[in-house]
Amino acid sequence: MSAFGFRHLGSDGRARLGEVSTAHGVIHTPAFMPVGTVGTVKAMTPESVASTGAEIILGNTYHLMLRPTAERVERFGGLHRFMNWPGPILTDSGGFQVMSLAKLRTMTEEGVTFQSHLDGSRHTLTPERSMEIQRMLDSDITMSFDECTAFPASEEVAATSMRLSMRWAKRSRAAFSERPGYGLFGIVQGSVYPELRAESVAALTDIGFHGYAVGGLAVGEGQEEMFRILDVTTPLLPEDRPRYLMGVGKPSDIVGSVMRGIDMFDCVMPTRSGRTGQAFTRRGPVNIRNARHQEDPRPLDEACGCPACRSYSRAYLHHLARAEEVLGLMLMTWHNLHYYQDLMRELRAAIAEGRLSRYAADFAALQAEGDIAPL
Amino acid sequence: MSAFGFRHLGSDGRARLGEVSTAHGVIHTPAFMPVGTVGTVKAMTPESVASTGAEIILGNTYHLMLRPTAERVERFGGLHRFMNWPGPILTDSGGFQVMSLAKLRTMTEEGVTFQSHLDGSRHTLTPERSMEIQRMLDSDITMSFDECTAFPASEEVAATSMRLSMRWAKRSRAAFSERPGYGLFGIVQGSVYPELRAESVAALTDIGFHGYAVGGLAVGEGQEEMFRILDVTTPLLPEDRPRYLMGVGKPSDIVGSVMRGIDMFDCVMPTRSGRTGQAFTRRGPVNIRNARHQEDPRPLDEACGCPACRSYSRAYLHHLARAEEVLGLMLMTWHNLHYYQDLMRELRAAIAEGRLSRYAADFAALQAEGDIAPL
Repeated sequence: MSAFGFRHLGSDGRARLGEVSTAHGVIHTPAFMPVGTVGTVKAMTPESVASTGAEIILGNTYHLMLRPTAERVERFGGLHRFMNWPGPILTDSGGFQVMSLAKLRTMTEEGVTFQSHLDGSRHTLTPERSMEIQRMLDSDITMSFDECTAFPASEEVAATSMRLSMRWAKRSRAAFSERPGYGLFGIVQGSVYPELRAESVAALTDIGFHGYAVGGLAVGEGQEEMFRILDVTTPLLPEDRPRYLMGVGKPSDIVGSVMRGIDMFDCVMPTRSGRTGQAFTRRGPVNIRNARHQEDPRPLDEACGCPACRSYSRAYLHHLARAEEVLGLMLMTWHNLHYYQDLMRELRAAIAEGRLSRYAADFAALQAEGDIAPL
Repeated sequence: MSAFGFRHLGSDGRARLGEVSTAHGVIHTPAFMPVGTVGTVKAMTPESVASTGAEIILGNTYHLMLRPTAERVERFGGLHRFMNWPGPILTDSGGFQVMSLAKLRTMTEEGVTFQSHLDGSRHTLTPERSMEIQRMLDSDITMSFDECTAFPASEEVAATSMRLSMRWAKRSRAAFSERPGYGLFGIVQGSVYPELRAESVAALTDIGFHGYAVGGLAVGEGQEEMFRILDVTTPLLPEDRPRYLMGVGKPSDIVGSVMRGIDMFDCVMPTRSGRTGQAFTRRGPVNIRNARHQEDPRPLDEACGCPACRSYSRAYLHHLARAEEVLGLMLMTWHNLHYYQDLMRELRAAIAEGRLSRYAADFAALQAEGDIAPL
């Protein structure tokens, strides 16, 4: 098994081309990770996820610890085997979702105690327990346990929260069991305050991680503010480690963040939007439920090679969405994940060929043009 | 384009091996047709339907005429193109589903007027309109418009209903536009009364159809009664035309009906049950939601080669069902359709090799043995 590692293969401005090596394979960066919350990327088989070009998926510790439980996943040889995804898996730490989904939460220096949103059962997550769960899940990339600071937060609240996360990061590092091919990422917090972000980076690099994530963004601050924080944060991160922007985002968020030196992304947007009838295309979003599509023989995106675009009209996809057919969820999700992977392929090619600025300008112009006119 | 036709290739007792030739391809019989109600076999791509071995699917005239409408399907070049299923399609006449789904129905000699269950809009179905709709859908096999007699029905009610259906069959035949490769099937009615069934067969063969369906069964009369009616009905049907038992059925219904000379079947059972967590297996039904499966690493059916059985444990399928994940619907449906097609393949092989009685006995013994014991 190869060591966990990052090869920085090239740059275009601050954007980076790279490879992350893990126990279950190599990830070409910049990379987008589809979200497989509870052991499945919703409405997709693992084979269809792989066919879009996705090389790594994300699993959610909070959901998996409740059902089917980390202990059961471990008995089945880890999450890869349980869900039939042979490639790399990153798991979050559970911290963010405990805060957004669990009931009756109590947070102390030690960790968080909460009730399951499914059955009310009581659980505790600490840095040590989060590391244990992620090890049982056999995650290639483990995330350190943190508190995702609420937005908006005063500088004082943000500082207190960030410093707790840094103490938890240290405990996460100590509890993480080193194994070849497995990595642990620290998470930069500090809300919208550059000094706090810098303090967080310093604390994390002092501890030392296999990679660094930027957390606490895409929580309502808006794209401009997010980019401003990336502008002051990513230059502080070690050049030789992968950088992961958590929970981001829209296609334009990804393009702008790649230009600011981010290597990895995850977001529920392509999968969740697919299930509500929204497609992402080269010409911006398309709501397939809209009546303008009901007689349209054209594909969602004429430049897309996904199964939904190769074999089905907008009229048919519209029909499936209106009839609430499962195949509609399947095809729309497939298209969106394929579109996101196309975007990442195009970004990697543009970086490799030193034409990222031009690519980003063309991307923005076509998005702004909007959807094709109705027939 | 080849003519519509039936080749009777061999027999084993009253069971027949055959081929039905249609405009969109050949169907090997005995055949099971997955139901694609509203332009999609629920939770399956057309490619995955084909991968199970299905050669023909069924579409529902009632659903399709309401949404997306036969007119729209025709503008898209027919149902095959609209839904991306290149193989043969059979459509029902709409009569049965008008009676079970529509509101404010009024039946006259002319036909049925009703309100859509979707939006309350008013529609009329007559033999002529049903033929027109099925032509617009481009069905390879059109079903004549009939009234499916309610069960139970007195002999008098059954006779009146059957004779109306026979007059409608004559009007259907007159309204059907002959095209090479396209066929029209008449439907035998008469409830549980052998004399009425015989009268119905005589009326239909007098008119002359490309194939003959047995309707009005699997409506609550039970398997024994259904087999009794088949025993007195199928011997009366022409040898040189395909025979289709509508809406049937459980695996044991199919085995017994094949032994009684039936060539074609359709049923929502494998797809609908798949979506509620019930799997059909060689050892009988399995409810995957049951807690006994939660730690079981074995596949649903160890003799099955479908993707759900090749790559996933019962524990994982149980997890998906409990978490109400779309992939659970997809894999369970895929398995059930694959199982049904395996059954048809095995029945065809047994007929070809003259060992159908032995096959049926082995089939029944294994079904009776029941599911594998928990670990």
